[in-house]
Amino acid sequence: MKTYFQDISKIEYRGANSTDALAFQHYDKDRLVLGKRMEEHLRFAVCYWHTFCWTGLDPFGSGTFQRPWFEGGTPMELAHAKAEAAFEFFAKLGAPYYCFHDRDVAPEGATPRESHENFLRMVDVLGAHQQRTGMKLLWGTANLFSHRRFMSGAASNPDPAIFAMAAAQVRDAMDATLKLGGENYVLWGGREGYETLLNTRLGQELDQLGRFLNMVVEYKHKIGFKGTILIEPKPREPSKHQYDFDTASVYGFLVRYGLEKEVKVNIEANHATLSGHSFEHEIETAAALGILGSIDMNRGDPQLGWDTDQFPNNVPETATALYHILRAGGLGSGGMNFDAKVRRQSIDPEDLFHGHIGGMDVCARALLIAEKMINDGRLGQALDARYAGWDTKAGQDILAGRVSLDQLADQVLTQNADVMPVSGRQEMLENLFNRICI
Amino acid sequence: MKTYFQDISKIEYRGANSTDALAFQHYDKDRLVLGKRMEEHLRFAVCYWHTFCWTGLDPFGSGTFQRPWFEGGTPMELAHAKAEAAFEFFAKLGAPYYCFHDRDVAPEGATPRESHENFLRMVDVLGAHQQRTGMKLLWGTANLFSHRRFMSGAASNPDPAIFAMAAAQVRDAMDATLKLGGENYVLWGGREGYETLLNTRLGQELDQLGRFLNMVVEYKHKIGFKGTILIEPKPREPSKHQYDFDTASVYGFLVRYGLEKEVKVNIEANHATLSGHSFEHEIETAAALGILGSIDMNRGDPQLGWDTDQFPNNVPETATALYHILRAGGLGSGGMNFDAKVRRQSIDPEDLFHGHIGGMDVCARALLIAEKMINDGRLGQALDARYAGWDTKAGQDILAGRVSLDQLADQVLTQNADVMPVSGRQEMLENLFNRICI
Amino acid sequence: MKTYFQDISKIEYRGANSTDALAFQHYDKDRLVLGKRMEEHLRFAVCYWHTFCWTGLDPFGSGTFQRPWFEGGTPMELAHAKAEAAFEFFAKLGAPYYCFHDRDVAPEGATPRESHENFLRMVDVLGAHQQRTGMKLLWGTANLFSHRRFMSGAASNPDPAIFAMAAAQVRDAMDATLKLGGENYVLWGGREGYETLLNTRLGQELDQLGRFLNMVVEYKHKIGFKGTILIEPKPREPSKHQYDFDTASVYGFLVRYGLEKEVKVNIEANHATLSGHSFEHEIETAAALGILGSIDMNRGDPQLGWDTDQFPNNVPETATALYHILRAGGLGSGGMNFDAKVRRQSIDPEDLFHGHIGGMDVCARALLIAEKMINDGRLGQALDARYAGWDTKAGQDILAGRVSLDQLADQVLTQNADVMPVSGRQEMLENLFNRICI
Amino acid sequence: MKTYFQDISKIEYRGANSTDALAFQHYDKDRLVLGKRMEEHLRFAVCYWHTFCWTGLDPFGSGTFQRPWFEGGTPMELAHAKAEAAFEFFAKLGAPYYCFHDRDVAPEGATPRESHENFLRMVDVLGAHQQRTGMKLLWGTANLFSHRRFMSGAASNPDPAIFAMAAAQVRDAMDATLKLGGENYVLWGGREGYETLLNTRLGQELDQLGRFLNMVVEYKHKIGFKGTILIEPKPREPSKHQYDFDTASVYGFLVRYGLEKEVKVNIEANHATLSGHSFEHEIETAAALGILGSIDMNRGDPQLGWDTDQFPNNVPETATALYHILRAGGLGSGGMNFDAKVRRQSIDPEDLFHGHIGGMDVCARALLIAEKMINDGRLGQALDARYAGWDTKAGQDILAGRVSLDQLADQVLTQNADVMPVSGRQEMLENLFNRICI
Repeated sequence: MKTYFQDISKIEYRGANSTDALAFQHYDKDRLVLGKRMEEHLRFAVCYWHTFCWTGLDPFGSGTFQRPWFEGGTPMELAHAKAEAAFEFFAKLGAPYYCFHDRDVAPEGATPRESHENFLRMVDVLGAHQQRTGMKLLWGTANLFSHRRFMSGAASNPDPAIFAMAAAQVRDAMDATLKLGGENYVLWGGREGYETLLNTRLGQELDQLGRFLNMVVEYKHKIGFKGTILIEPKPREPSKHQYDFDTASVYGFLVRYGLEKEVKVNIEANHATLSGHSFEHEIETAAALGILGSIDMNRGDPQLGWDTDQFPNNVPETATALYHILRAGGLGSGGMNFDAKVRRQSIDPEDLFHGHIGGMDVCARALLIAEKMINDGRLGQALDARYAGWDTKAGQDILAGRVSLDQLADQVLTQNADVMPVSGRQEMLENLFNRICI
Repeated sequence: MKTYFQDISKIEYRGANSTDALAFQHYDKDRLVLGKRMEEHLRFAVCYWHTFCWTGLDPFGSGTFQRPWFEGGTPMELAHAKAEAAFEFFAKLGAPYYCFHDRDVAPEGATPRESHENFLRMVDVLGAHQQRTGMKLLWGTANLFSHRRFMSGAASNPDPAIFAMAAAQVRDAMDATLKLGGENYVLWGGREGYETLLNTRLGQELDQLGRFLNMVVEYKHKIGFKGTILIEPKPREPSKHQYDFDTASVYGFLVRYGLEKEVKVNIEANHATLSGHSFEHEIETAAALGILGSIDMNRGDPQLGWDTDQFPNNVPETATALYHILRAGGLGSGGMNFDAKVRRQSIDPEDLFHGHIGGMDVCARALLIAEKMINDGRLGQALDARYAGWDTKAGQDILAGRVSLDQLADQVLTQNADVMPVSGRQEMLENLFNRICI
Repeated sequence: MKTYFQDISKIEYRGANSTDALAFQHYDKDRLVLGKRMEEHLRFAVCYWHTFCWTGLDPFGSGTFQRPWFEGGTPMELAHAKAEAAFEFFAKLGAPYYCFHDRDVAPEGATPRESHENFLRMVDVLGAHQQRTGMKLLWGTANLFSHRRFMSGAASNPDPAIFAMAAAQVRDAMDATLKLGGENYVLWGGREGYETLLNTRLGQELDQLGRFLNMVVEYKHKIGFKGTILIEPKPREPSKHQYDFDTASVYGFLVRYGLEKEVKVNIEANHATLSGHSFEHEIETAAALGILGSIDMNRGDPQLGWDTDQFPNNVPETATALYHILRAGGLGSGGMNFDAKVRRQSIDPEDLFHGHIGGMDVCARALLIAEKMINDGRLGQALDARYAGWDTKAGQDILAGRVSLDQLADQVLTQNADVMPVSGRQEMLENLFNRICI
Repeated sequence: MKTYFQDISKIEYRGANSTDALAFQHYDKDRLVLGKRMEEHLRFAVCYWHTFCWTGLDPFGSGTFQRPWFEGGTPMELAHAKAEAAFEFFAKLGAPYYCFHDRDVAPEGATPRESHENFLRMVDVLGAHQQRTGMKLLWGTANLFSHRRFMSGAASNPDPAIFAMAAAQVRDAMDATLKLGGENYVLWGGREGYETLLNTRLGQELDQLGRFLNMVVEYKHKIGFKGTILIEPKPREPSKHQYDFDTASVYGFLVRYGLEKEVKVNIEANHATLSGHSFEHEIETAAALGILGSIDMNRGDPQLGWDTDQFPNNVPETATALYHILRAGGLGSGGMNFDAKVRRQSIDPEDLFHGHIGGMDVCARALLIAEKMINDGRLGQALDARYAGWDTKAGQDILAGRVSLDQLADQVLTQNADVMPVSGRQEMLENLFNRICI
């Protein structure tokens, strides 16, 4: 097999004092954290698309990367080369999982059948690479947004024939995910939305999406796929408005179509902030609603209004996110996918390693901080103290529906006394967090 | 009775060529539009708070308005004066409805009972003014956000004793709304949210809110109130995050707590844009989900990240909103409240009239355009044509769940032909809209 | 010559009651407005890049447009075909001007010399088409942002050799603009900015840009180009931060490098709103600073954080912009370029016409409104009245520097009286604007 | 003297392992950093307004704080009490500086003269407190935005009589600053902007502002004040648009009115992000333009579109800012003012201490990291290497204006070779920063 990253050796953990830029300082996969190995907590995945397919193209410029698997062969030959490069990268990096779209790994053919066959062939190739390297598939998905036929949506397309084209791709992608031992299946609806209400039947498109997702769930059970079906919320881009705007919207959608027990969310940090929420807000909301599934651990830029898909690099922010994940009991079959790309100017193959090493190290340090936050206990105690009134019988009676508005109002007038508010102590808690962070 | 706006006569409709700044050019309340009087479509309401209570204070400056009812008497005397001024304004303006919070019309007392009694007394005063003038109440509501006791929320407060204080206010406000013939009851949760997750149990607070809203609905039925209970979504401000973020979030919340048949939304244009949506998006979403209740017809400023509560002044934008409302079948018991304030520099009493006259005229013109959009028919036809495939048997079979993913995928492979996309024709439709607008 | 838009005839003015979607309802080029023909006021230009080069590609999807000049020939053959199509479009649309980047009209070659020669050849072709059709060039420009060599900037590149490559392109583009009778020359610095300060010498890059722009001005004088040099501000995208952030920033930059008499700004509506300003703010600021040069008349979407480059479609907003341009004395050698693209789903050639017809009609109606605003006089009078104090001797003495802080402070203490503020009357003025708009 | 914070002792440095929430873990004022004491680098100031005057009021709610100096005396008695409380707080906290507006420390009187006299009296009181405690004044300023007379601006007011009122306040505030040994004088123009261009002469208002600032500079020289005059940029809030939008805009303004050698900027983190820039961008821009003066070290919330004025709490972000300040040679006579307020729910007096202790500790840790960044040297070396081409003779010739566009273009065609771009290495540099941070 050809080598594509000949100058890079396997990335090793070398500890906090190492000055080796191509080693981990914090990601020590076997280190125990709250009784589980770091690797089992973090369940890192590398994404195929940004890392191996993206050319560096942006809306104002053409590709800047010159990868050996971009040119010089038939589409299928290049797909083979790309797979070799990808698994070499995976093996050297040491993340246990990867993720892909169908069209990342196999080229679109001239006909649906040719596309189907290209994909089947490449799934076998991926399976052999997995076998050889021990890599695992965190999730598979179908690209229902790049081809021009999906320009007006896939499941929400005004034309049912395109809905059917989407169904064909999803069946193949689900079959492939099952075959490759994938632990989840993801749907991201970048074109499931609209550009203008002037040409859109919003209510009907929601029904189409609801029906499509039910079909997916039915098919999952038919084929015996045990992984989790995940929806990835995003508010906009490429569409003006996307129906899976944020976690709370997706929850309402799932309940409307009877799917809240079947489908969870894959939350991306960058999508969270684009929707006007903090990353930890989306995590905590999903946890509260019982639909926290998996994480795309890539951030945006606070000054930019589009998806920059950058590797996480702020340790305290990442620690806050991980704290909420740990408190929610972890991610189950989910994991942490880097749906992240190196900057368009980072054109050296080595930059792909720097991006992932930095991201993994930031998460590893953040995990250790989150562990300290939990073990320290003071943050949790402050929270319990603040809500203590709701743990009394009176509080529980209200929550359980044993008291009416009328009764509460009568009590207030009878007692006829004001209730004094209590400090929220935000600054003290923020300081406490920072002190635990060190 | 004293007069407060002695220089202003009743505002009359004088037609498009009038140069009288204190007359309507478009709002001709008895003009028939699609078979109903303009007044019945628009159901305008003036809000008590911004128009009669706001002093012109902002976060960087003190009050700029010097109203006769702000100073020079006991709180109850001033409440009487304010009510007189308000009803003089209502009668001169000619909007059929008004809206109020409990604390707008009667002062907070030293004890809960005194507050309760102040309010009961002022409700009688309002009732007498309504009787005298023919004004009607579009909705009542309780102010659960201004007093320091609610700084950490009302229903979502960490202290159940404050939840009870909120219940007492809401009971009184609901009783008052019933007594005054109010057609809806609104809840806006400006403090039902959080500043930091470090001190927040998000999931429990949602349960508290769900329980509170169920109590409200139970009490509505107990007292025989026939109006609609409305939630007013807003994403943030004053809180960092508010649970009623937008219509889709509120829908999920309602379903979670079994309330989607009982509660609708009161959509505000300014809140829509703060949440990252267009106003018409929020209207269409609520219509699609069956929870479109009422409208706060005040806009934000596209460059500002807070609630500016300005009167609508862009006719085409307002026409788009009204088109979606008309297509949804109108607002039922809801109406169009101007939750709008004149700018802090608009210190003359006359400015209050200019604000409302402009807002009403913009909506009236917009209504006539929306009527043309419907009567013209081309926009609707273009929409029907675009989705025609879904009206075929094949399309209906998919939507009805009679076809599986597998079957669709098999069809695609059997036909083995690509599907060509069709132009979305957005520019043509936008031009058509502009041409109908004239 | 081949025809590319065989189904489209010349677009004619047919008046407001026409239902012909492929005719103007308002753009009546010879109509006199404030003593000048509409065409002379608006000076519309069609842009080559979005209209003839863009494939419909976006960051999440490949091209959707299938133009005959995209495939099936050598790059130079396709460049010829594209030019034919472009001039057929121009002639049928009836806008008097067009604009281009060097790389829009001629393909990049294998070497700098080949690129240079390709471009020279195509400039001759454009010249012949201009001759034949009477079309004029509003401005030329060089594309210094698409090729990978410019990924880290052109004039602000860390490598002076790339600065030189940019210089070579600009010389050719300036020569071509002169040769083709172009009335302005534009520089847009999409890559003149940074991604991270960690790898950026901000101050030095400003100096590089300052030097480059001085070279451009020196070359302009050397070759005797009489048109205006224009900088096009944009805050970000593609770069995280661009040095030409907005008009006020560009003004500071020009003064710093001694260029404020030599260079003006080309203001784009979409760039204005991305920088946190209204379009009219940017126009009025440029006018006040004496650097208003030209306009890119394409808007953004208020919910989207990137450049959507949409045709203007809101008449009152456009009228406000035109009012400020007229008050500033018009655009001189500048014009109104549609740096606008049809939506990615608008795949029919006809959609290109709908986009431009709508944009031109909106501007034409807006111009007529702006004319009424000026002729009506009330808006101007209100402004004069508001600032009347500054027209007194006392006001003029202050402005002219004849009074010191000390003297004013002494006056205040001597008079010892408060000054009462006066209503800003914003709502009345907004209503007045709406009434003039009809 | 009365004590207001009886439960709080002097805040001491206790080291990183301390669990005392009311001690510093990092701020060790005498520790040497790059040859200077920590206290001399950071020059912390506490602001009078947020800490002692703000009541907890926000646009949707009344005050939540109940300070002993808010009620129970005449305005002047309360001003004395507030000053006592403030200096007790300063002394216990151990920040060396404070800042104030005239109206923070002394009440507005019934006439200009009474306001003047109130202020003079309180300046003496402050002087005595300074004497007693050793506290120093970082800067003084005049509040030209809270009183209704300034609702339409102070220096940019349409009425020159209000311009004069502003002049009177500024003279007093400058005199007071001189008398109290203040090291700078600040102008923040929250009302120097507009709400609508319909009632605004933008160009004239700029001239008014330019004249006012020149008066201030002339007066500074007249009275022999040696401190720096500072402008504090902010894009909007309370006005829709403020003329001092950001550092680059202020620079252009200063040059236009001949003030770029006389006036610098006071950059606030929160204002930076509201203007669409990162904090470090504003610092680096001011440094590059030679106008970096002082810092308001309070951040915003990335999800909120208004000034939240929060204490800094993200260490890596703050370290980045301090790195740029250190590289720029520090702040000179400027310092780091906490224009920060505790959250409205942080109602305990103790919360005021938590806010400031956290802020000071975060800056202290950040300073130590910035020191490491400089001592480590690798970040600086990477930067030098990237721009090495500009240090060659060829590069210097270009920058010095010894080469023309023509010459460079000729060189390119002669050499006729492409230039290969070089990786920007952003991810590697970000990782390096994180590794230095530990």
